[in-house]
Amino acid sequence: MDRSNSRRRTAEAEVEMSVEKIFEGKEVPPWERQLTARAVAVSLVLSVVFTVIVMKLNLTTGIIPSLNMSAGLLGFFFVRTWTAFLHRSGLLRQPFTRQENTVIQTCVVASSGIAFSGGFGSYLFGMSDVVAKQSSEANHPLDIKNPALPWMIGFLFTVSFLGLFSVLPLRKIMMVDFKLTYPSGTATAHLINGFHTPLGAKLAKKQVSMLGKFFSFSFLWSFFQWFFKADDADCGFANFPTFGLEAYKQRFYFDFSATYVGVGMICPYIINVSILLGAVISWGLMWPLIAARKGDWYDADTPESSLHGLQGYRVFIAIAMILGDGLYNFVKVLSKTFSGLYNEYQKKNLRLVLPVESQQSPPLSTDDQIRTQIFLKDQIPTWIAVAGYLIIAVVSIIAVPYIFKPLKWYHILVIYIFAPVLAFCNAYGCGLTDWSLASTYGKLAIFVTGAWAGTNNGGVLAGLAACGVMMNIVSTASDLTQDFKTGYMTLASPRSMFVSQIIGTAMGCIVSPSVFWLFLKAFKDLGTPHSQYAAPYALVYRNMAILGVDGFGSLPEHCLALCYAFFAASVAINGVRDAVGPRFGKYVPLPMAMAIPFYIGGYFAIDMCVGSLVLFVWEKVDRAKANAFGAAVASGLICGDGIWTLPSSILELAGVKAPICMRFFSKSVNGKVNDFLNS
Amino acid sequence: MDRSNSRRRTAEAEVEMSVEKIFEGKEVPPWERQLTARAVAVSLVLSVVFTVIVMKLNLTTGIIPSLNMSAGLLGFFFVRTWTAFLHRSGLLRQPFTRQENTVIQTCVVASSGIAFSGGFGSYLFGMSDVVAKQSSEANHPLDIKNPALPWMIGFLFTVSFLGLFSVLPLRKIMMVDFKLTYPSGTATAHLINGFHTPLGAKLAKKQVSMLGKFFSFSFLWSFFQWFFKADDADCGFANFPTFGLEAYKQRFYFDFSATYVGVGMICPYIINVSILLGAVISWGLMWPLIAARKGDWYDADTPESSLHGLQGYRVFIAIAMILGDGLYNFVKVLSKTFSGLYNEYQKKNLRLVLPVESQQSPPLSTDDQIRTQIFLKDQIPTWIAVAGYLIIAVVSIIAVPYIFKPLKWYHILVIYIFAPVLAFCNAYGCGLTDWSLASTYGKLAIFVTGAWAGTNNGGVLAGLAACGVMMNIVSTASDLTQDFKTGYMTLASPRSMFVSQIIGTAMGCIVSPSVFWLFLKAFKDLGTPHSQYAAPYALVYRNMAILGVDGFGSLPEHCLALCYAFFAASVAINGVRDAVGPRFGKYVPLPMAMAIPFYIGGYFAIDMCVGSLVLFVWEKVDRAKANAFGAAVASGLICGDGIWTLPSSILELAGVKAPICMRFFSKSVNGKVNDFLNS
Repeated sequence: MDRSNSRRRTAEAEVEMSVEKIFEGKEVPPWERQLTARAVAVSLVLSVVFTVIVMKLNLTTGIIPSLNMSAGLLGFFFVRTWTAFLHRSGLLRQPFTRQENTVIQTCVVASSGIAFSGGFGSYLFGMSDVVAKQSSEANHPLDIKNPALPWMIGFLFTVSFLGLFSVLPLRKIMMVDFKLTYPSGTATAHLINGFHTPLGAKLAKKQVSMLGKFFSFSFLWSFFQWFFKADDADCGFANFPTFGLEAYKQRFYFDFSATYVGVGMICPYIINVSILLGAVISWGLMWPLIAARKGDWYDADTPESSLHGLQGYRVFIAIAMILGDGLYNFVKVLSKTFSGLYNEYQKKNLRLVLPVESQQSPPLSTDDQIRTQIFLKDQIPTWIAVAGYLIIAVVSIIAVPYIFKPLKWYHILVIYIFAPVLAFCNAYGCGLTDWSLASTYGKLAIFVTGAWAGTNNGGVLAGLAACGVMMNIVSTASDLTQDFKTGYMTLASPRSMFVSQIIGTAMGCIVSPSVFWLFLKAFKDLGTPHSQYAAPYALVYRNMAILGVDGFGSLPEHCLALCYAFFAASVAINGVRDAVGPRFGKYVPLPMAMAIPFYIGGYFAIDMCVGSLVLFVWEKVDRAKANAFGAAVASGLICGDGIWTLPSSILELAGVKAPICMRFFSKSVNGKVNDFLNS
Repeated sequence: MDRSNSRRRTAEAEVEMSVEKIFEGKEVPPWERQLTARAVAVSLVLSVVFTVIVMKLNLTTGIIPSLNMSAGLLGFFFVRTWTAFLHRSGLLRQPFTRQENTVIQTCVVASSGIAFSGGFGSYLFGMSDVVAKQSSEANHPLDIKNPALPWMIGFLFTVSFLGLFSVLPLRKIMMVDFKLTYPSGTATAHLINGFHTPLGAKLAKKQVSMLGKFFSFSFLWSFFQWFFKADDADCGFANFPTFGLEAYKQRFYFDFSATYVGVGMICPYIINVSILLGAVISWGLMWPLIAARKGDWYDADTPESSLHGLQGYRVFIAIAMILGDGLYNFVKVLSKTFSGLYNEYQKKNLRLVLPVESQQSPPLSTDDQIRTQIFLKDQIPTWIAVAGYLIIAVVSIIAVPYIFKPLKWYHILVIYIFAPVLAFCNAYGCGLTDWSLASTYGKLAIFVTGAWAGTNNGGVLAGLAACGVMMNIVSTASDLTQDFKTGYMTLASPRSMFVSQIIGTAMGCIVSPSVFWLFLKAFKDLGTPHSQYAAPYALVYRNMAILGVDGFGSLPEHCLALCYAFFAASVAINGVRDAVGPRFGKYVPLPMAMAIPFYIGGYFAIDMCVGSLVLFVWEKVDRAKANAFGAAVASGLICGDGIWTLPSSILELAGVKAPICMRFFSKSVNGKVNDFLNS
């Protein structure tokens, strides 16, 4: 699922009056004083926190909601506490400004963004042995690259900075000339501006306290759960057959995960309902029906985890839906991008032809005048961007083929020629629609490069690696342009933003692989089906690469037909949503969301719907409070459970096992167990 | 534990202004129209509901909090809904008055009171085979009487009405002359008066809705829990080792019982803390220390359930504490009673000597004038009370020895000669202190009659039966005088009250044994240690009888010394509380409450402390709401879980077993189980 699919709901009411009026008389510090040491320190702490959380989400389901609200709140909280403390001791040299807050926000987003675009739950982990074994095709050593800290860090350093340089020269066009909305960036800016008004600071304080409470609750709850899982995957709350054992077998149960209840509270209702619908259609209907064809459609002796059996239907139908959704939105966003650009071009021509006074462009508001002035003050010369891009491109064209043997220098060269255009398209599309197509561009790279490299030359690995190169560029490009929008609206200097992004990206290149490494060492069953960390997208990405290289030969019977049907359905559903307009369209499910449970089952959909339900009831009871604190509660739940992963992995590494096993038997099995225990 | 020990906290603020002013102009219906058919119908329904709940409490721990608030609310709710419905359809002939409400309350209290005084969790069940087997003494057939519906109903009918007649002539003295406070009766009257004011009705509506919500939640939660217990005592939430397996072995765990969380919310903090303290002292400290003396203090081969082993220490030390507390309070309340009576006598003498105008007696308030006038209007001739008492006494002197062979007619005769005096003392003491000493009088009867009948003549059974006769008289006496106070304050006619009490008592004599019978048939492990329905007081009462008959011979080594110590401690603690005064005394634990977990363990103390904690936090957050709705929430929790017992016992009788077993293994046992299941 694309990161931005789960649209931001930071319920910031559009500020009608002038924002800058409130900040009148407050000095905007020069860019060097926006980028303080304490900001970098706080960023590093938050970056580790959010990397752990994103990594956990990556490796469990791949659904990553917007964590901007939590990052903003926590950043504000840390520096505010710190400055309040210094202020009291008389040591405070510099007050906490919203520009500094933006710098922290930018740095954390850049750093934890790598946890997503680094592909630890998708392409990068898809290269590994563990995932390759499940695919039963393309198991050639040439197609396998097991994760190891040195090459992961090296790879990320060579590819992650390109996106940054590629959109740098365009920031003025996006912000000042095109005035793109960037809904998420704007929401974050409202949030940060809000923090620094007296009323907003008071609300923020309450939100932080709410977040803290639910953080503690969620952390302690995970800690409590830990005691009951012994060293056995069958034990613990994660196997609670809430709706009975039959439903449990079809993966319908509430697994008491605070994370996904929180995610459900952040994601819009339609996403949660779509996921649940997908779970019902797949695990409730299709898989049981297909399983009944065992021995007919597929060999009855195939092990359950083989892609030639039921698992094949699960994975490939999911891929078909994801690709259908991806293709539809790719075409849609791209056409919007081009029509948008065409309009701008028209306007520019018009402006050259008509006399100045008759031009249609509306007068700039006071806010925009101030913002544009500040935004254009601190320039970054274009030659830095071009030189930076070229140098890093050359380094990475030389270095990356050393890491991935099947990926040749000319593959990368071709990617790097097209990349700036694609990065621009993604940044522009994201500005219009808030929708980052990074993973779709990545999939494109898989198919093109995979086919180009060919079966016998490690095409699968080449495809996955190319996906990584592509995703890192386009994903950072759109993320960082969003940040520039935030900076534009909080009067942060582009220079401090840029440096902060570079620092954040560098942090991410080291922190993310390290955290992934910790997960990999601590949780031995990482990436295996039915485990807590199933990393569903790793298998999905690898099989997309296999499809790209080998074609459809590896699919079980009737699977291709079903795939076509679901691909078409996915495109059609999207078409219907756009056709019926926003009023009814919001009730049409999202195929991308529906596809997620196809492979891993519906248990997290139950969690998320519980989150929806909680929020729904809360909104009924007290809408104002729900709007003000919903996101804070959700962030608390997500962060607490996420952070528990750290001590839990350390316990795991230290060989400490939980003392108790809570497990569930059917009545008859329990009878046997009792007989055994009493004998 | 005595029923009234857990003092009522129905947080009714003393109404400063005149209550009757509010009801001015509202006609008080004649007594026949206070006692309507619908009132009796509603009473029957509520009586079954509360009998089930009290029975469940009786058979699990023996702690019975005041359910007046819930009975009042539910009675109000039922008739209100009914009359509102009739009113709308135009069929309402008679509006719902507070007098009718009082009649319902009285009837329900009389009926569900039998569930306590009938001794189904204490003396009556203590006569049975199941309990006798655990005692390993006095297992002679003459000392055993297994429960059966016919004799239980017969016995209750012959003894339950005596208390009613014995205090009937005294009601004027208690209410009008002595003006005793009867805190619980007064609180109930405030509650009912409140319901029938416009503001109070609005609050009551909200309280009922709160009660309904938590009733549903509690019921559904119990239903959900049911699915996970299969047909195995080791399965289900009731065995959740919340604090780890070691703590579980010492019976410290949260068993997710909504009932005891609710009970904890109703009982004062000091009771819950006392119980927890008792659990820590006994199961956390003493039993492990005594268990370490195994083979030294007692034979290492004794089975765990034998009273000659560890179990003996548990039961007898608990008895010692209960008797110490009982003796102290007996003396205290009795001396208060006598000093109170002496004062009244002095006043009366004074009044005869002094001229009228110099008398000290304060003028009657308007409220009291109206109340006294109404209270004295409907007289019940004294000859009815005397005749009723004599007739029933004769019947029961003849009938009861047929039921219990070892209990001779002269035992009963002696009890019946003293009973009216004791009943008066208990009713008077209860009016002064809100403390019913019914079970203490019962224990007195056990010792006296048991010793009188002697070992070889079934003294144990005789003692238990005498306890029943005694308890029924004194317990109903105090309960019903409380009701008269409620009636006095709500202007209900003594006549309608008396008839309602007779109806209620008759209901109770049939409903209570039937419900007990249902429990007995449905839950096969009723009365065995460590089971859900351990009926701890059954064993305690039987062993008190054995002590009374056989002396201390059956106690294991050092147990007698420990018993003396705890008896003394119990008296001393009570003395300290009274000595330090109410300000610090409220922090001194109650020995009676401390003794409860000695035998059954601390798990319900955890539940109750959770209830305390919830209430405490609620009071911190919103004191007004907590005061208004705390009791309603608690009642909902208690009733929902209690009522689930009905369908659950029906499922049990129908042989329907829960499909899933949730159980808990240590890591090592789980390993073995896994090996077994995989082999």
